[in-house]
Amino acid sequence: MAKPELPETRTLAAQLVAALQGRDDSVATAESLTGGLLAGFLTSVPGASAVFPGGLVSYSTDVKQDVLNVPPDVVAAHGVVSGACAEAMATGVRDLLGSTYGVSTTGVAGPETQEGKPVGTVFVGVAGPDGTRALELSLDGDRAEIRESSCVAAMSELLATLAGDR
Amino acid sequence: MAKPELPETRTLAAQLVAALQGRDDSVATAESLTGGLLAGFLTSVPGASAVFPGGLVSYSTDVKQDVLNVPPDVVAAHGVVSGACAEAMATGVRDLLGSTYGVSTTGVAGPETQEGKPVGTVFVGVAGPDGTRALELSLDGDRAEIRESSCVAAMSELLATLAGDR
Repeated sequence: MAKPELPETRTLAAQLVAALQGRDDSVATAESLTGGLLAGFLTSVPGASAVFPGGLVSYSTDVKQDVLNVPPDVVAAHGVVSGACAEAMATGVRDLLGSTYGVSTTGVAGPETQEGKPVGTVFVGVAGPDGTRALELSLDGDRAEIRESSCVAAMSELLATLAGDR
Repeated sequence: MAKPELPETRTLAAQLVAALQGRDDSVATAESLTGGLLAGFLTSVPGASAVFPGGLVSYSTDVKQDVLNVPPDVVAAHGVVSGACAEAMATGVRDLLGSTYGVSTTGVAGPETQEGKPVGTVFVGVAGPDGTRALELSLDGDRAEIRESSCVAAMSELLATLAGDR
């Protein structure tokens, strides 16, 4: 696969797959700005199939609403670049694919702003048996760096959840 | 984003996005062994949202059957590493996301064989207005190389379809 820019990305993916395997849990991904990269990092780890049934790349708003069941009210009130949308995406993919956890990314990778929000505005959502939450990030870098940093943040958040730190 | 190993990967993604934009067509992806990388390469191109509504990473057989509507008969008769499954995945994601084209990947990235098929056995499916077909590949390399080469083959096949060469 593609070589990650950041050395920790591969390590994090392997740590996350191992942590999920140890608990017999699974994760599904719902990606907007990362566009498949998060799933790509997870599946770069041999044996990922034991913990990763799959994921949805919901790049368009229609796919977010029609396939992930993000409520149109959430999009109308908060936009797709929002914590509320990230939470709905994470919940939606968890329900769709029947995984223990759902993790989502939505944000502005650039080069243009979106919904009036600056490049680097990113939300990561985590849904699991104990509830759902979202994290807001302001990331620096070019499009590629923002996308990869978003994946790192999503994997870190789920690892922290598994460790009981969130 | 992740740096591709192969110099042509980024170029191909940009060519494909430009070709689709020029025709006002769209593509959705259904990925098994590539696990999101194909979508990741497409969305590394700024402006990809105009031609890429999204994609499904259908890593497990259940997700292939339950979300992409791959017929269980196809899996039972041919396995998931088959041209028939690749065709059903491409058709399924095209129907699910309402795109002009659907492109799929399924195969054995390694390190272990699957369904008795050797590492590097890969099928790429393309579904579009003129029908559906699958291409069988025997790829060399490690897990990362096989996954990226599969993405290159999938993008090349769709470009050839758009150019009328298939």
